[in-house]
Amino acid sequence: MPQHVRIAVDAMGGDFYPSHPVHGALLALKELPGDFSLVLIGDKAKVEQELGRHKHNGTTRLSIHHTTQVVEPGDQPGDMLRNKLDSSMHVGLQLVRDGAADAFLSAGNTGALLAVALRRLQRIEGIRRPALAATFPTLTGNPSLVLDVGANADCKPVYLEQFAVMGAIYARLVLGFDSPRVGLINVGSERGKGNELTQKVHQLLVRLSEDGKVVFSGNIEGNRVFSGECNVLVTDGFTGNIVLKMAEGFKPTMEDMLRQIVRSGHLSQKIFALIGGKIFLKSTIGSLKRAFDYQRYGGVPLLGVNGVVIKAHGRSTPEAFKHAIAMACKEVNAGIVSMIHDQMQNH
Amino acid sequence: MPQHVRIAVDAMGGDFYPSHPVHGALLALKELPGDFSLVLIGDKAKVEQELGRHKHNGTTRLSIHHTTQVVEPGDQPGDMLRNKLDSSMHVGLQLVRDGAADAFLSAGNTGALLAVALRRLQRIEGIRRPALAATFPTLTGNPSLVLDVGANADCKPVYLEQFAVMGAIYARLVLGFDSPRVGLINVGSERGKGNELTQKVHQLLVRLSEDGKVVFSGNIEGNRVFSGECNVLVTDGFTGNIVLKMAEGFKPTMEDMLRQIVRSGHLSQKIFALIGGKIFLKSTIGSLKRAFDYQRYGGVPLLGVNGVVIKAHGRSTPEAFKHAIAMACKEVNAGIVSMIHDQMQNH
Repeated sequence: MPQHVRIAVDAMGGDFYPSHPVHGALLALKELPGDFSLVLIGDKAKVEQELGRHKHNGTTRLSIHHTTQVVEPGDQPGDMLRNKLDSSMHVGLQLVRDGAADAFLSAGNTGALLAVALRRLQRIEGIRRPALAATFPTLTGNPSLVLDVGANADCKPVYLEQFAVMGAIYARLVLGFDSPRVGLINVGSERGKGNELTQKVHQLLVRLSEDGKVVFSGNIEGNRVFSGECNVLVTDGFTGNIVLKMAEGFKPTMEDMLRQIVRSGHLSQKIFALIGGKIFLKSTIGSLKRAFDYQRYGGVPLLGVNGVVIKAHGRSTPEAFKHAIAMACKEVNAGIVSMIHDQMQNH
Repeated sequence: MPQHVRIAVDAMGGDFYPSHPVHGALLALKELPGDFSLVLIGDKAKVEQELGRHKHNGTTRLSIHHTTQVVEPGDQPGDMLRNKLDSSMHVGLQLVRDGAADAFLSAGNTGALLAVALRRLQRIEGIRRPALAATFPTLTGNPSLVLDVGANADCKPVYLEQFAVMGAIYARLVLGFDSPRVGLINVGSERGKGNELTQKVHQLLVRLSEDGKVVFSGNIEGNRVFSGECNVLVTDGFTGNIVLKMAEGFKPTMEDMLRQIVRSGHLSQKIFALIGGKIFLKSTIGSLKRAFDYQRYGGVPLLGVNGVVIKAHGRSTPEAFKHAIAMACKEVNAGIVSMIHDQMQNH
């Protein structure tokens, strides 16, 4: 049965704080179903000032937890751990650790978030490395989960084996795939292809599949990452980050190209541009925006630590924060952390 | 002064042999300027049969070199080296080695081509690993050269340093950039970001840039590989292959999306679809095809061996073979191999 979910939201993270996280929190309270409450973590005066900009009904579902320090983009994770103990990240994650919140959401510095989450929450027993798992759109309309997208630039084979297990759990319980198909991002589709890492991971995933722990569909090459044929795509954090950013660059690139085509196009295109191709273009670009909308998925969960932690994109809109809050509720209700824990004990 | 260029063309390689390579050779002779001749390497009867299908004037610029063996997609490089000495790959590369041809072009099995090229031609003195260098389209209209795209799945820092040097030579002499800007594909734009490999490579490229050997522009993230801001993008063969294949998947993905949008679109789109949006769509897709046309660049040079070797895509059209032949002529005339050789001796 869904529980009451308490989400700590970092009001001091991302490129547009406190504006976007605060506005996003209000949107979530207004528009999302479900039994949840939010704690905005940050400088109380600034958060209240921001709240004052929006018409909203005072609600017991929203509170502020005052902190005095802010994580800067240039902060090194080490400094963060020593010197920013009263930052919104430390405090928000400590609330999760203490059981005073069920999830923490932040659009702040990724490296700092990883470091503080590891320090405060620790890894789930048996998990070697936590992973950032990005949900992204595919041609089928179904999303695919790609992990790791940047928590671990250098990986050992066992890390990716565990990413497969964690990813499959998330895809089943949060994305709703009954029996998620797991693919390995690789060069070449045949067994035996790849670099040292993926060759070994392939063997591990075959064994995992034989043991019935995941459904392994084999290697997925770069041209098939958008195909949606796998629900979970496993990779090291370096490759995953390149793939994710290329995918994110896809929509603006496509928009640019469409504009160039209309501007410098052939006769038929010019005629259409004159008689209304611009409307067509605009609505096409609108559809593309929706189809390739990373904001729709709101954020990227950090899987493998003892608590629900979601990294929102630094440039998240209020709408994206709202989606990330919905995601956090879903993840808490699904009990992802204890599912991963149980799976690791049985392995 | 441009010399007479003799190109050996593998008539038995790729998904559509001997049809596409033979047809491509004829197109090249008919349509390309420049002083060159072609030797088709393969089963003489089959090649002659294929030539018979096309109207062409008998020409002294086209000859056939008979071979008896064919490289199959499943052939392991080791078997290739031992048991297929009379295949078109061995024979074509031997012609280059013996000075009887100036370049070899093949759409056959990449792994086999790499193995045989290394065996027959050897690496240029000082070069640790040869690299496949793919030219691909960007938003500026200028191409970028990405290397390595698959010759070396696991790389050491010095390999990528040498890829930068070879890539810059190629970009200057073949692609025509006066002073090519070199970027490193990486996660994060700042110095110090990346995995173990790219962190070290970054330092090497900074030093190379300080010594005036290349112009190093820093890290390039996944969302900027299409931006065209760098003329040469250096990466390991695993990442490069993923990037290349994602880029190749871009055009069909975009086409699919445009079709879906028109089919299931909003009212304004439906109206345009009715009154001629399909023409718009068709011409837009046509423009996309041209803009993101990998066939236009014909093939991927293998840089770092003692000879000009070009790998054409397995699915190359006759037109793509023609472009690859043009590319081979350009590379021979530019003297890429001796330029790389000289640069390595000075390093």
